[in-house]
Amino acid sequence: MNKLEVGILGATGMVGQRFVSLLDGHPWFHLAWLAASDRSAGKPYREACSWRLRDAMPEGARHLPVHECKPGGAPLLLFSSLDSKVAGEVERDFAAAGHVVISNSSNFRMEPDVPLLIPEVNPGHLSLVRAQRQRRGWKGMIVTNPNCTTVGLAMSLAPLDRAFGLEKVLMTSMQAVSGAGYPGVPTLDILGNVIPYIAKEEEKVEAETQKLLGKLTDGHVEPGAFAVSAHCNRVPVEDGHTESISVTLRSKPSLDDLVAAWRSFRSVPQERELPFAPRHPIVFRPEHDRPQPKFDVNTEHGMATVVGRLRPCNVLQFKYTALSHNTIRGAAGAALLNAELMRSEGYLD
Amino acid sequence: MNKLEVGILGATGMVGQRFVSLLDGHPWFHLAWLAASDRSAGKPYREACSWRLRDAMPEGARHLPVHECKPGGAPLLLFSSLDSKVAGEVERDFAAAGHVVISNSSNFRMEPDVPLLIPEVNPGHLSLVRAQRQRRGWKGMIVTNPNCTTVGLAMSLAPLDRAFGLEKVLMTSMQAVSGAGYPGVPTLDILGNVIPYIAKEEEKVEAETQKLLGKLTDGHVEPGAFAVSAHCNRVPVEDGHTESISVTLRSKPSLDDLVAAWRSFRSVPQERELPFAPRHPIVFRPEHDRPQPKFDVNTEHGMATVVGRLRPCNVLQFKYTALSHNTIRGAAGAALLNAELMRSEGYLD
Amino acid sequence: MNKLEVGILGATGMVGQRFVSLLDGHPWFHLAWLAASDRSAGKPYREACSWRLRDAMPEGARHLPVHECKPGGAPLLLFSSLDSKVAGEVERDFAAAGHVVISNSSNFRMEPDVPLLIPEVNPGHLSLVRAQRQRRGWKGMIVTNPNCTTVGLAMSLAPLDRAFGLEKVLMTSMQAVSGAGYPGVPTLDILGNVIPYIAKEEEKVEAETQKLLGKLTDGHVEPGAFAVSAHCNRVPVEDGHTESISVTLRSKPSLDDLVAAWRSFRSVPQERELPFAPRHPIVFRPEHDRPQPKFDVNTEHGMATVVGRLRPCNVLQFKYTALSHNTIRGAAGAALLNAELMRSEGYLD
Amino acid sequence: MNKLEVGILGATGMVGQRFVSLLDGHPWFHLAWLAASDRSAGKPYREACSWRLRDAMPEGARHLPVHECKPGGAPLLLFSSLDSKVAGEVERDFAAAGHVVISNSSNFRMEPDVPLLIPEVNPGHLSLVRAQRQRRGWKGMIVTNPNCTTVGLAMSLAPLDRAFGLEKVLMTSMQAVSGAGYPGVPTLDILGNVIPYIAKEEEKVEAETQKLLGKLTDGHVEPGAFAVSAHCNRVPVEDGHTESISVTLRSKPSLDDLVAAWRSFRSVPQERELPFAPRHPIVFRPEHDRPQPKFDVNTEHGMATVVGRLRPCNVLQFKYTALSHNTIRGAAGAALLNAELMRSEGYLD
Repeated sequence: MNKLEVGILGATGMVGQRFVSLLDGHPWFHLAWLAASDRSAGKPYREACSWRLRDAMPEGARHLPVHECKPGGAPLLLFSSLDSKVAGEVERDFAAAGHVVISNSSNFRMEPDVPLLIPEVNPGHLSLVRAQRQRRGWKGMIVTNPNCTTVGLAMSLAPLDRAFGLEKVLMTSMQAVSGAGYPGVPTLDILGNVIPYIAKEEEKVEAETQKLLGKLTDGHVEPGAFAVSAHCNRVPVEDGHTESISVTLRSKPSLDDLVAAWRSFRSVPQERELPFAPRHPIVFRPEHDRPQPKFDVNTEHGMATVVGRLRPCNVLQFKYTALSHNTIRGAAGAALLNAELMRSEGYLD
Repeated sequence: MNKLEVGILGATGMVGQRFVSLLDGHPWFHLAWLAASDRSAGKPYREACSWRLRDAMPEGARHLPVHECKPGGAPLLLFSSLDSKVAGEVERDFAAAGHVVISNSSNFRMEPDVPLLIPEVNPGHLSLVRAQRQRRGWKGMIVTNPNCTTVGLAMSLAPLDRAFGLEKVLMTSMQAVSGAGYPGVPTLDILGNVIPYIAKEEEKVEAETQKLLGKLTDGHVEPGAFAVSAHCNRVPVEDGHTESISVTLRSKPSLDDLVAAWRSFRSVPQERELPFAPRHPIVFRPEHDRPQPKFDVNTEHGMATVVGRLRPCNVLQFKYTALSHNTIRGAAGAALLNAELMRSEGYLD
Repeated sequence: MNKLEVGILGATGMVGQRFVSLLDGHPWFHLAWLAASDRSAGKPYREACSWRLRDAMPEGARHLPVHECKPGGAPLLLFSSLDSKVAGEVERDFAAAGHVVISNSSNFRMEPDVPLLIPEVNPGHLSLVRAQRQRRGWKGMIVTNPNCTTVGLAMSLAPLDRAFGLEKVLMTSMQAVSGAGYPGVPTLDILGNVIPYIAKEEEKVEAETQKLLGKLTDGHVEPGAFAVSAHCNRVPVEDGHTESISVTLRSKPSLDDLVAAWRSFRSVPQERELPFAPRHPIVFRPEHDRPQPKFDVNTEHGMATVVGRLRPCNVLQFKYTALSHNTIRGAAGAALLNAELMRSEGYLD
Repeated sequence: MNKLEVGILGATGMVGQRFVSLLDGHPWFHLAWLAASDRSAGKPYREACSWRLRDAMPEGARHLPVHECKPGGAPLLLFSSLDSKVAGEVERDFAAAGHVVISNSSNFRMEPDVPLLIPEVNPGHLSLVRAQRQRRGWKGMIVTNPNCTTVGLAMSLAPLDRAFGLEKVLMTSMQAVSGAGYPGVPTLDILGNVIPYIAKEEEKVEAETQKLLGKLTDGHVEPGAFAVSAHCNRVPVEDGHTESISVTLRSKPSLDDLVAAWRSFRSVPQERELPFAPRHPIVFRPEHDRPQPKFDVNTEHGMATVVGRLRPCNVLQFKYTALSHNTIRGAAGAALLNAELMRSEGYLD
């Protein structure tokens, strides 16, 4: 397969940097084009970007020029990690101009004709793009991945919903600071502290989870018929959102049934062996004190959701802990896997 | 009122140090006697204790000798913060020998004839000590305060239960490291990390909350008729347990009704103006991002429970955040207020 | 003494907030006027300011309107904590318009006719303002305090220089994040990390220390005849700059002589009992592992410099550790003490 | 080359875990034997060890039984990371019984007939073992590596000493918590804090640096003829000791000369391409704010010393920052490289 040239919108931010890092050496995609805010435009990437990842900036990216976020000269496929303040307009312009925009921004996620996609959870929702192009008259399209907090929740729920039927979900998150981008959370706000609020986060988690686990019917997604409630907190962790989750299921499975559902969970990305697909999308850890961000956040290169501490709940039916890497599985890696799914389905030919 | 001489069992640990600190200048009690493990016995306190509080060790305590944990020579009233491995036997010996033991240890909390007491929540439960003394043939008695995580939860629930009837409670804690004592949590375990497990904590929170909000009937406590489920997590915070709480109440109050119930909450300690009683046992903060340990943990000298972020819950009825100082309101301050209540009722004459 | 009305330039920043907090209840000064950037101007302080201190915003400041940084309507005495990008012009305008500007900004510190002042160290340098007004034709004046890192160093050196003559100083700092203001240091930069660089900090420390310990001769300050070298590092501490210091002195005192010099150090602020003067400007701690920010930063309300770990140095003569509160003694408290010294000398009549 | 069977003394501690991790897949050595305290003896490693590294425990080690620290049955070559309280006696027993003990413990480092070795710095000192065996009548031998703080200092000094002659060194360290082992530093001691003291550390750094850079003459090491002074501090960092270093050299090189000396530095391990030898023992970073533990600690798999911020010093001649991984280059990796050097010289045949 020839490598497809790709670009990044918002290449200098935290998620943009993850895109640059994850695309380095990707077998299907070749990073050829970068765009960011006007302030950065015109500089080579190494100067425009305050690189914050532990791994060094890939050589191939250092010398790429940073463009303005305008369609001319950009490749067909674009990953977008633009701030939601500007993403709406920019992504629309690119889609209208014929580009496939794989967006990590929140702007279009809840639009009825825009796929909100986790390839393991709802690959079929991708077909919404037909209605999208028709209705909007776009030559291109927009496909989105969920919020970084939604991903771990929806991944851990998907096999339970499939096997036992989901009725109620109550989730409390303890979210890493990298989720807020860079400069993001000031040290003075979070060192030795917990902040029990993240703007618009709970609303996103609640709505997106229902869309992700909803059913595609007559060209639209019927939200999942279960209740979701989220408490979102920020904690002084660098990477990895930890979630304390209680659920009620429609049938009465045993604890072992849940573990089996998680451990056996495989889906389209695993079947097709997509490059970024984790072999085990959900890793269940039997230890009494796992998952933990320090030890588990990079499981399967940060693409797995790690669950553990499964036990009965006195109020709902079961409770457990889930962990997901917020800038890989919850952002750049999620978008990449979406692009891989799309290429495997012929959307990028 | 003459000052009553008091002692501390387990004086060198983190909670023991809080007792020493809080008793300094106390209007009703005079710290006259200290005991700790055999390793410390025989030394002056300043040498036996690796003092970890920010305020300096009170002058009056520096030169006190540390005794073994044996009844001879100890004053009538003893505060105990012994490790639960030894607290059972030691506290029993002291109570049998005629001492009033106000214990922060977990050993006796769930015994049917031992008061588990929050003076604002269930002051009437104190009368259980009559059955205790009779049944056990003790001249003294044991009175306990709840686990540091239970306190904030039970405080915030008490006015809701009183006014609207409690049906379901689901709580996720983010607990400070000082709750684990000293040396306690190794830095390598928690720096930049979350640990989703604290041994026996969830069981304690669930059982203690039902006992605290239970009804004293025929000389025993009938557990509260509501379901409680706890997820307990450790986070890199020094002091202050933050809790994300969802509740269902039996009646259908408004958000304003809940705020009013919290703000108007007063009980026996406030009526009697006990020295350690917070003027406002529950402080409601209207900001969208409070309470936070950094800013709110010392509210009312660490004796108030601070609540905020009240909003509807999609799964239960309401959700909110509560914060409580785990070594003051959740341990040493709790025991002190218990002692003040007891003195005001004549139990220490 | 009547309270003098005072104002703050840059009232919404971290140091501005410290000014507001420290002026609350001040016996000599009454906070009557606030100014900040144009973005804040026109709002009441409680809305313009993202308050970051643990103590609540003083009631008296909440309703004060925030003005633009222009002279009209401002009181005689102004504390300035403006960003150095704008401080130069603004402070000059106020001084020209007749105001006394007590500045924490770096812009004028090294001007030959501007006092760089620590009241305990070089109170006599205040007289430089005469030359300043004459030369510049100002009705007002500008007086500055040193950089937050310089203060602890210069305070700890002053009694050694006075008694034994200073020859060489080598200092490595471990600086708190509050020194960078708010939002200041991003969490992603410093959580679990050390940053061995703070822009322009080493140059400031080296030059300012020599000016502070220099001699006023013929209307100008002759820099101290000793060498100073600084390594400046950022560490994940909230408040309190810790400094590892090695010195060579001109005479050959004993370790005890140095301790005695520190412990007996008193100066004009102590003699005149200025309200913000620490009773002991330098507190020597004999423990083997002090000072530490956690325990010692608030010594004497954050106005003392705490020293410890004095021992011989194999390369220079002695080595020790010093600690100083960077936003109190190193910024707002420093400026306040400067103002108190000036009032006690009649400069504000 | 056949793989040589090796064992670990003190296999369950932090450095012991690093040995286990680094030996996994080693081309020359096969981990076949583990020993630890009596408390652990008799259990399989997976049960005896509270594994604290981010990478999972190697499969090959999980099932190995943990032995007592007694010679019978142990392989010829042993890595020791025993606590210094017991290392003296145990290592002596093993050496007397014919084992080659490569020790990370401090007990024998300063013995005149024991090599204190950094293969890049003083490979020739290895020949001291001849005198050792003769004098002590041992069939085996003991070879040591330096303290974790000494390594980065000595590595960065070695090429400067070789090229320009070292005269004076003043070093202030900011040390990671993993240097204190596990459980090691309590969170309550270091979260948001700096501790300006590490027991015996400064003495070790000063003496070891002089021995490492000393000259082997007549069968003993003449300490380097330069002065060294160390300030040692603990900071809330997980891995990586950062050091602010000032030096005076005997000749007058330029800044570029120093950079060239560092960059061109190669030694025996590089020439022989020992498996654990970093290709570049010293990596100079030209950025103004590097090295930093977060970004640079794992340079060359944690085996390089990273230096940066080179500039003139007003008191000594130059100053710079160095960073070294304290449990890899500063402990387990150091010992492994010593073993590789020894095998390449025929000491293990």
